[in-house]
Amino acid sequence: MSDFVFQNPTKIIFGRGKISLIGDEIKNYGYKKVLLLAGGGSIKKNGVYEQTIKSLEATGIGWVESWGVKPNPDLEKTKEIIAFAKEKEVDSILAVGGGSVIDTAKAVAAGFFVENVWSIFEGKTEVKEALPILTILTLSATGSEMNMGAVITKEDERKKWNFKSPLIFPKTSIIDPEVQFTLPWNQTANGAIDAISHIMEFYFLGQKNETALALDESLMRSIIKVTDQLQENPENYDARASLAWAATLALNGISGAMLHYGDWSTHIMEHGVSAFKTDIAHGTGLAILFPAWIAYCKDANPETFKRWAKNVWNADSVEEGVQKMKDKYTEWKTPISLMEIGIKEENLEEIRNITIKRFKKFGALKQLDGEDVLKILNLAL
Amino acid sequence: MSDFVFQNPTKIIFGRGKISLIGDEIKNYGYKKVLLLAGGGSIKKNGVYEQTIKSLEATGIGWVESWGVKPNPDLEKTKEIIAFAKEKEVDSILAVGGGSVIDTAKAVAAGFFVENVWSIFEGKTEVKEALPILTILTLSATGSEMNMGAVITKEDERKKWNFKSPLIFPKTSIIDPEVQFTLPWNQTANGAIDAISHIMEFYFLGQKNETALALDESLMRSIIKVTDQLQENPENYDARASLAWAATLALNGISGAMLHYGDWSTHIMEHGVSAFKTDIAHGTGLAILFPAWIAYCKDANPETFKRWAKNVWNADSVEEGVQKMKDKYTEWKTPISLMEIGIKEENLEEIRNITIKRFKKFGALKQLDGEDVLKILNLAL
Repeated sequence: MSDFVFQNPTKIIFGRGKISLIGDEIKNYGYKKVLLLAGGGSIKKNGVYEQTIKSLEATGIGWVESWGVKPNPDLEKTKEIIAFAKEKEVDSILAVGGGSVIDTAKAVAAGFFVENVWSIFEGKTEVKEALPILTILTLSATGSEMNMGAVITKEDERKKWNFKSPLIFPKTSIIDPEVQFTLPWNQTANGAIDAISHIMEFYFLGQKNETALALDESLMRSIIKVTDQLQENPENYDARASLAWAATLALNGISGAMLHYGDWSTHIMEHGVSAFKTDIAHGTGLAILFPAWIAYCKDANPETFKRWAKNVWNADSVEEGVQKMKDKYTEWKTPISLMEIGIKEENLEEIRNITIKRFKKFGALKQLDGEDVLKILNLAL
Repeated sequence: MSDFVFQNPTKIIFGRGKISLIGDEIKNYGYKKVLLLAGGGSIKKNGVYEQTIKSLEATGIGWVESWGVKPNPDLEKTKEIIAFAKEKEVDSILAVGGGSVIDTAKAVAAGFFVENVWSIFEGKTEVKEALPILTILTLSATGSEMNMGAVITKEDERKKWNFKSPLIFPKTSIIDPEVQFTLPWNQTANGAIDAISHIMEFYFLGQKNETALALDESLMRSIIKVTDQLQENPENYDARASLAWAATLALNGISGAMLHYGDWSTHIMEHGVSAFKTDIAHGTGLAILFPAWIAYCKDANPETFKRWAKNVWNADSVEEGVQKMKDKYTEWKTPISLMEIGIKEENLEEIRNITIKRFKKFGALKQLDGEDVLKILNLAL
């Protein structure tokens, strides 16, 4: 079976110089005062901030700014921003940044209308209303610019959890690949690995879903090819554009259609790892864990794992495919073991415990419990 | 450059037995009385009509029925249906059928609010309002279930023209691949060729758009593979599902993103051919014309034509790729020359004249005028 529902209303404006359209977009929706949400200041260096402000000014949109969203964005900061948004009476949010900024925008958008934003993540409060969100994407990786999910970390309890609601689809996202020319290499590589990993979460559930499997293979191959090109030349516009659009397609419903809404075990385990060690980039965590998960689960759907090895890595066995993936990630200068990021054998039980805090068992292809998690973490050591 | 805007709000409900959800969908939108639009009666044989009515009754939705939409749907019928829709005071349209029925629904939806529906096609009247449309798809081919275009023929003037408006995106389309088990083979084959042709209209404009080219190749290969499977066994559910979803993706904006909104010369010429001879299926017209267009235009973007030959047809030259495509279409029992559908050399000038009635010159990869059209028609003879 391959039943699914697909609906994604986000408007994507893609191309060079398109940031200048943001003011008109906001104006056309009728919003008057936006909360401009940003991270650590890189958008002041690469010209994105200037282009944004210029467009807001030209169209007469009012705005207030909130800075300092960090990678693996946390709950306390989210709460601060919600209070600020209420105080300033904004009617919309403009997220200017990567997945962390956009995810924070989504949590703020929904949290604006409830007493306790974390209760949404806990599933105790339903999202019935949200501020409208627009985004200007500066790092292609999470796909958050065109989906209805958000991940936030509650640091004191080491919970990196997500929520979903159709109300938090961005109204409009502007993707100008050129602004990613100046990204540090590790961010480009982590973004590519994040996108490949999103596709794999769906792909390995497939069997006879030819269109879905073929489409996903084409996206994975394209990401590998253009990321190699970007390692050579970070200012290759065509490669930036292809990586950006593939990363959006990797988690906007297209890569997952016909594929049973995905497995997500590796993401849940990665959320365990990066809740334990919050300075780990999500893509790096996935680079480390996915090979281990594949090794552990490959017998659950052998034909599809073989097909992946062949069609994505030109390999004759799953083992060879996994090795080629690890070699590629190493070539991209990304860690492929927990040891390399400073995690030791004695930490694994704690990571396991963090991982199973929310769901005791998880995974669609193969259901995993705490014991399985520990075995996979050991494989990834 | 590869700038684009993507936005597609249609909700797709995909899978076996999903037609039963139509009543709830309509109810959730708040519509009270739908115009059920249908073709020649096949939906009474394959159970689709019964499932639809049952769902409408169960949810208390009122409806009136209008039957008899034919392939290459015509303006006079459209006008009749608009008058009927006004008389019956419907608030929405439910198209149950293939592309012809859905395109008619779109023309009726927009025509409901203007004096002269054809003036929309002529570009003289702007679409400012449209009845909401839902669809139950019974033939995967045109992609109309998830896009904002419609084609109607004004028979007395031999004009097969289209219009576009974001207001005619279907709200919801239900795709149950199983209902296509009983299609005559030629309809399945024509649908597959239509979908491949839609992708090719975009693909040949690509150059360094790796993600777009790779994705489009994967869709074309998948369509060829599963259509072969359906020729063996028309009740192969997985193949039906893959063909259906690929045909939707072929013209919902995904296959065309990064590819400059497409060339469309072959479609414009096909509209000339089928306005001249209205009993020709659109897919058949495209099967005949596309090889000729490729032969005529291949030097305008040689690397991409070669890449297509290699990656879609496993051929070493464009000529070999075209030959393999023709062989495949012949294997699928589809005509590949104008002669085979009864068009003679002496008809070509008239077809050329019909073709250039709307646009004297057209085409994005290579601009064509009447002289070029005549040469391509001769190649297709």
